[in-house]
Parts: sequence; C-alpha cells; structure tokens
Amino acid sequence: MNKIVVVTGVPGSGKTTVLEKALAQLKAQKVIYSVLNYGDVMLELMRERERIRDRDDMRKVPADRYREIQREAAKRIARASKWGPVIVDTHCLVKKPEGYYPGLPRWVLEELRPESIVIIEAKPEEIAGRRARDASRRRDKEVTREIEEHQLMNRATAAAYAAFSGAAVKIIKNKDKGLNEAVSEMIGILR
Amino acid sequence: MNKIVVVTGVPGSGKTTVLEKALAQLKAQKVIYSVLNYGDVMLELMRERERIRDRDDMRKVPADRYREIQREAAKRIARASKWGPVIVDTHCLVKKPEGYYPGLPRWVLEELRPESIVIIEAKPEEIAGRRARDASRRRDKEVTREIEEHQLMNRATAAAYAAFSGAAVKIIKNKDKGLNEAVSEMIGILR
Amino acid sequence: MNKIVVVTGVPGSGKTTVLEKALAQLKAQKVIYSVLNYGDVMLELMRERERIRDRDDMRKVPADRYREIQREAAKRIARASKWGPVIVDTHCLVKKPEGYYPGLPRWVLEELRPESIVIIEAKPEEIAGRRARDASRRRDKEVTREIEEHQLMNRATAAAYAAFSGAAVKIIKNKDKGLNEAVSEMIGILR
Repeated sequence: MNKIVVVTGVPGSGKTTVLEKALAQLKAQKVIYSVLNYGDVMLELMRERERIRDRDDMRKVPADRYREIQREAAKRIARASKWGPVIVDTHCLVKKPEGYYPGLPRWVLEELRPESIVIIEAKPEEIAGRRARDASRRRDKEVTREIEEHQLMNRATAAAYAAFSGAAVKIIKNKDKGLNEAVSEMIGILR
Repeated sequence: MNKIVVVTGVPGSGKTTVLEKALAQLKAQKVIYSVLNYGDVMLELMRERERIRDRDDMRKVPADRYREIQREAAKRIARASKWGPVIVDTHCLVKKPEGYYPGLPRWVLEELRPESIVIIEAKPEEIAGRRARDASRRRDKEVTREIEEHQLMNRATAAAYAAFSGAAVKIIKNKDKGLNEAVSEMIGILR
Repeated sequence: MNKIVVVTGVPGSGKTTVLEKALAQLKAQKVIYSVLNYGDVMLELMRERERIRDRDDMRKVPADRYREIQREAAKRIARASKWGPVIVDTHCLVKKPEGYYPGLPRWVLEELRPESIVIIEAKPEEIAGRRARDASRRRDKEVTREIEEHQLMNRATAAAYAAFSGAAVKIIKNKDKGLNEAVSEMIGILR
C-alpha cells in the first residue's frame, strides 16, 4: 500500500489552488499522486447502488445505507492506493443547515487509514473576501464569524481523527500573499 | 427507530429555556418529542442496581460498574425512541474539580446513535451574568475565563462525538436579546 | 489496578517542574507514584524488538510495527499499575515537520485506560520566553503563534481521548508567578 494523504479546507481556503500547484511541481520531480474526491466516489457508488442522481439527493438515503456507502467509498480509495500514492480531497466537516457532518467518521477512517490529514486554512476575513468575489455578499462580520467557527471545529475534528486513526495532522496557512509558502509546505508533506 | 437528538449546554447557556420554547411551538404543530435527562436515567438505574440514593454518590461506584450503567442508560433511551422522537438532555463535558468528564463516551454513543448533537452556547460574560443572579459572585473575570474554557472544550468534545458516531453537530448561539432566533434554530433541527 | 494519570504539556509549559514539586509533597504524605515516560518505554521496546538505537530512528519503523509497539508500551505501563499508582509522562500531540502526531491513539488508550489526562498549560508568550533562554531565538510573534496553535490542538486532542476512553481532562494553568497554585492543583488530581 502507498501513502494516503487527506487534504481538507473550507470553501475559499484555497485548497484546490495549493494542491494543484504542489502536484504540478511534484510531477516535474516524478512524484505522481492520484487525486480522488471523496464526494465524487460517494456519488459514483450512490448512482450504482441507490439510483441517486445528484449530490443533493445523497442525504435522503437512510442513515445505515449512507454509512455503508461511505465505508465502501473508503475501501475503494484504499484499493486505489495499491497502484500509487493517493490524495483524498474532502472535508473535515461539511456544513449544512442541520449542522456540521464529519467527512471522515470512524468507519471511513477504519478503511482509509490515512498517513496524514492536511488542513488548508486562511484568515476568516480573507476567505470571506474570496467568497464575496463570486457570490452575493452577506453581512461581512457574520460571515467572518461563521468561517472562524467552521475552521475551529475542523481543527477539533481533525484532532479526533488523529486520536482515532494515528494520522498526523498538518495545518497549512494559506495567506493572501503567501501562496508559495503554502505550496512548499504541501510539497513537504507529499514528497 | 425515531430521531434521537442530544441537547447540551453549560449551566446558564439557556438550554432549558430554548428547549422548552421550541418544544411548545412544535407541540402546536403536532410534533411531539419525549425529553429524557441522561442524569435522571442514570440515577434511576443506579438506584435499582447499586442502591445509590443521590447524584453525588454516583461517582463512588467503581469505574467499570459506572460505565456499564452508562451504557445501560443509553440502551434504555434508544429503546424509548421506538415510540417517538427523543431529546436527550445532557452535557458534552461535566465539570468537576478533578476535570471534565465526557457525557457521551464511546460506549454511550455506540448504543445511543444520535442523529444530531446540539450545543447551546452564549457569550461567557452573559452566562456569568445569568449565573450571578442566583449564586454568590466570584471574581467575574475568572468566572468568564472558566466558562470560555468549558465552552471551547465542549466544542472539541462534540467534534470527537461526531467523528466517532457520524452525528451532525449544531452550534446554536443564545444571545441575551436573541432568544427567538435560538428557538427557531432549535425548531429547525427538531422538525 | 491502581490509578493511571497521564500528564502532558508542550515543551516549556513547566510540566516537569510542576510534576516534580507535586510528587515531592505527596511523598511527604506517603503517596508514592511511579513515573513512566512513554517515549522511554517505547524506546526500550524498540531496542529489544527492532534493534533501533535512538529516538530519531523510531519513526522509521513501518507504521504497523510502530503501532504494535505503541500498544505493547501501553500494556507494559498498565501492568506496572498493579503495584501502585502510575503517572505517564507523555504528549497529547508530538509536533514534527510532517504534522502533529497523537501521543495516545486509540490502541494506546484501549490498553492504558487512564483515569485522568492532565494538560499543563502556560501563556504562549511565557513559554516562548522560557524556551528563548536556552535556544536560539526566532521571530517571537511566529513562535508565540505556533505555541498557541499547539496548545489549542492539544486541548482538542485531549477532548477526543476523553470521548474515546471516558478519562477526565484537567487543564492546569502554570503562570510565571503561579507555580505553587499549579502544584497544588496537580496534587489535587493525584491525591
């Protein structure tokens, strides 16, 4: 089995940018990762087994079936790691109106056995600014406070994932003018 | 099985008020929850099996017996959910001089399998103010700092419960002049 | 089995000082603890079974073997508690360039079954000051921020350990001029 690294970050943290730049540089050094999006693997399985068509319908599946498919997705990803190192693109906590859902609950960690869990973080105000560019603005202070809460809860959740699975937790700060620094920290984890 | 929702909050967070108002409004909409206090169910079992008479004596029971009764209480609550949705009134962490005790350790979550864990929070200064009304005052700053610590630790613990059980965690802010907002968020979870 | 108390704290928190002073006072009261350093027990087992000579080489052992030895170390410590109460000197999270590693992952807690987990904390600036005395200085603000992050993550991890094992978590603040207070809080836990 090869290395499995979980990469997380709230929307607007710059997760995708950091990851893509790091992977491009690693490719030049002949280090090739497969990137699997947990939600995509889930959706694929949901389509095959539950005839669910889009992401919004996934949570309508009964809890027991949902968890079984979550575990199945983890197994599929773990199997993929036989052929080379794998990055799992996912969330510590998914925010919904009903609350924060754990992206890697116990039964997922049992199958996935990641080596590290990376959290890409940024300042709440910077994230709010990045989000505002493409969405309708809300009261900025409120949004900033919510992002702060989400990031704090993500840290706590990652700590619990570590306690349960033994994975290392790495927090990478992605500042507005510090992309290169974030990218080289990410390379440090993946190399 | 019906929905099991765990509701938590430090003393003075307004947990009881928010819950009662939400339940009254839901009753008018024919949504009826049973509310079970975890400590009460524990005490009942302790009386039956260990001849313990009051709450203060409960921690004198040997750790293994204590845990068995904790698990038993969770089973009893889970069984009650056959007849309708259940709210479990409890604590993320119970604060004692020896430290913070988890209200829902692993063996409780395994039996209870809650759908959501709600944390009712308020500003530490507001909680300190509410507590001061009925208790002898201590140095305010110290009390405020302790409440802040307790609420932070509750968040971290709820995150661990979520990681272990898959439950969603919902944080509801109960501001001094924002009771209605808190109540309608609670209704959103329970409906 | 006797009491097992886990004592943790980041470098510079004053963990060793608080612990030694508390143990000296307890000795005068005929309360005698064995103190076992988790890293030392690990190294001993690594030497016996993997022919590893120093701490830096320990992480080179394959993950599965490493975890087996971690579990073995916990068993050894649990056995030692047959003869008297035990303090386990360790870390909530060990900080490495690759991230934070949990000191007490699930398989360790399953064997160790601690009664309490103590975190010795201090203000980040005070810790930075204490460290600066014996090490080469870095930009102070950066160091302070890193210590703050580490202590926050330690709290979250201790909460997860509690959720998993049922142990109580006690946070003891060790202020620059408050050593005696910290020592008497520690004695309160150990007595």
